[in-house]
Amino acid sequence: MPERRPSTAFAQAYAVIMAGGSGTRFWPLSRRRRPKQLLALFGQGTLLEQTVARLRGIIPPARTYIFTSQLLRDEIVRRLPQIPSRQIIAEPAARNTAPTIGLAAHEILRHDRDGLMVVLPSDHVIRRPAEFRRVLKAGCAFARTEGRSVVVGLKPSRPETGYGYVRLGPIAARQAREKIFRVLRFTEKPPAQTAARYVASGDYLWNGGMFIWRASTLMCNLERFQPRMAAGLRRIAKAGATRQVLRRFYPRLQKISVDYALMEKIPEVYAVAADIGWSDVGSWAVAYELNPKDRELNVRPRSSLAVGARGNLIVSAKKFVAAVGVRNLVIVETDDALLVASLDHSQDVGKAVAELDRLGFKNLL
Amino acid sequence: MPERRPSTAFAQAYAVIMAGGSGTRFWPLSRRRRPKQLLALFGQGTLLEQTVARLRGIIPPARTYIFTSQLLRDEIVRRLPQIPSRQIIAEPAARNTAPTIGLAAHEILRHDRDGLMVVLPSDHVIRRPAEFRRVLKAGCAFARTEGRSVVVGLKPSRPETGYGYVRLGPIAARQAREKIFRVLRFTEKPPAQTAARYVASGDYLWNGGMFIWRASTLMCNLERFQPRMAAGLRRIAKAGATRQVLRRFYPRLQKISVDYALMEKIPEVYAVAADIGWSDVGSWAVAYELNPKDRELNVRPRSSLAVGARGNLIVSAKKFVAAVGVRNLVIVETDDALLVASLDHSQDVGKAVAELDRLGFKNLL
Repeated sequence: MPERRPSTAFAQAYAVIMAGGSGTRFWPLSRRRRPKQLLALFGQGTLLEQTVARLRGIIPPARTYIFTSQLLRDEIVRRLPQIPSRQIIAEPAARNTAPTIGLAAHEILRHDRDGLMVVLPSDHVIRRPAEFRRVLKAGCAFARTEGRSVVVGLKPSRPETGYGYVRLGPIAARQAREKIFRVLRFTEKPPAQTAARYVASGDYLWNGGMFIWRASTLMCNLERFQPRMAAGLRRIAKAGATRQVLRRFYPRLQKISVDYALMEKIPEVYAVAADIGWSDVGSWAVAYELNPKDRELNVRPRSSLAVGARGNLIVSAKKFVAAVGVRNLVIVETDDALLVASLDHSQDVGKAVAELDRLGFKNLL
Repeated sequence: MPERRPSTAFAQAYAVIMAGGSGTRFWPLSRRRRPKQLLALFGQGTLLEQTVARLRGIIPPARTYIFTSQLLRDEIVRRLPQIPSRQIIAEPAARNTAPTIGLAAHEILRHDRDGLMVVLPSDHVIRRPAEFRRVLKAGCAFARTEGRSVVVGLKPSRPETGYGYVRLGPIAARQAREKIFRVLRFTEKPPAQTAARYVASGDYLWNGGMFIWRASTLMCNLERFQPRMAAGLRRIAKAGATRQVLRRFYPRLQKISVDYALMEKIPEVYAVAADIGWSDVGSWAVAYELNPKDRELNVRPRSSLAVGARGNLIVSAKKFVAAVGVRNLVIVETDDALLVASLDHSQDVGKAVAELDRLGFKNLL
């Protein structure tokens, strides 16, 4: 990626990357110590590294914060030497996104009273990074000048029932090619028929968990809509937000997503429309769809063979894999475990992990 | 197995176990250095060890000869310490069964002019060993007293087109519960319709490559029907059948099976009928059928999990395997390779191995 001159839109923009997530859908590749954001499910490097790389030329490492768990922090520090390690912050307990974002806002305000926050998940794929940067630029410009909260609204490609949707109102601004809409409503996980109607109408975008606002705007909204959380966070900030302080006070904050805590409550929210090849890579089946395929539509490494095998996803770092006469499977081989699942049942991988937990195979989790 | 008093029928019986075979159908478990007879595809121990164990109480290790390749001899010596190592003989080249059996006859005649040979493959499963021993006893008694060639005729369970059949004539003798028939004809690999007719008629048995005859009877037949091979073998025996001698002369012998070389030519052959739970374990699909299954009809190790998975064969010595939503697969994991195949296509595993050979993955063969 060529270096580019930072746009003034990003002059005071800080990236807040949410990298504390855990999950079981990519077992056995994903483990407690290596969740999805630390996997290379698509393209070069882990999804977290790709998230950071996508900001190159717009938000520098010096203004990038990563929030994660204590379990993952060392690995993230190791993988991202360009990010100052004091900006890779371990939360002593998982409290969902609202407390994390509040903590981040305090941190940014300490350095820059006019700082702009760009909140980004760390485990998604964006296949059109240039478009993504243009969208961020428009969103930052709007959030800064208008002092409003902006959500990146993703163009829906299917009637997905697992996501949140935003209903668009009138256009509020155009920034170069990008359009910014007033948001009329946030809706979480609609039923299938409703989702289909949303997508067909063209009036809805997906909420992918990417937000832009001034840190001070966030703080005002937090004081207004989550006064207890705001008070808790103020106490933490006052005490210096050290590890000891966090360990003591952070777990007492309410466990709640920013969507529920704030976005559904803030009266004036805006969405910048984004058609950026986004995917949250929700299952092995999605990982299969995203990756390049051989002539028989298999996604597979060099050290593998497919004989009469079609439509399979094969992941194996060390071992040679031969697939013979099989279709639509996900085959994942790691140092201590092997998964063979139907791609159509890849959402059941979580069940297998739950069963492993129940049976006491802790070392496989 | 309790020790039993050796029957006089076996007093001069020598086992000749054919353990030189190679094959690709059980890849990746089977390799050039670990062919099927050295695999534990069913029950306890390798198929070769089971072959030797089945003779306990009837033919002692002191009268057991194993013929194999140079590649496998060390491993076999290691696995069968009870067999005198000079009786584990490496052929310098694979010449099929006729030369091996001729060599064995010479070896036995050196020790015992009235020796009886019991020729046995080393890579088959026999699930009723007591019946098997009774069949051998009847065959040995007949072969000794009548001086005839006896084939163990296996009761066919399906119209298999890959085997040889013997057509039965009149009953020639009864030994306790066992029946011995005159053989009217040997037929190799009949077409499907013919095989179906054979099995329906009740007049045919499978030829599973188990033979009983005096070593001297075999020698006579060899002189008569394969005079060149007989001469070659005589030269080898005269020179002492040392490794050097074998290396020089053995590869010059005609490569031919005892079925073609002798059995189809000898005018008077007899079959002892055997209903002994025999299987040649010809593919992963057969290995699946033979082994005990869980409630979802999976054959799988303890360190595995099946979630909505049915009818699978899972083989993995070290790695935990989770099968999710898959059916009728064979999943085989070894130190350096992984096979995932449809059980219905398990005969295509050989194609995968041929492809590996073509692509130059010699270390995986």
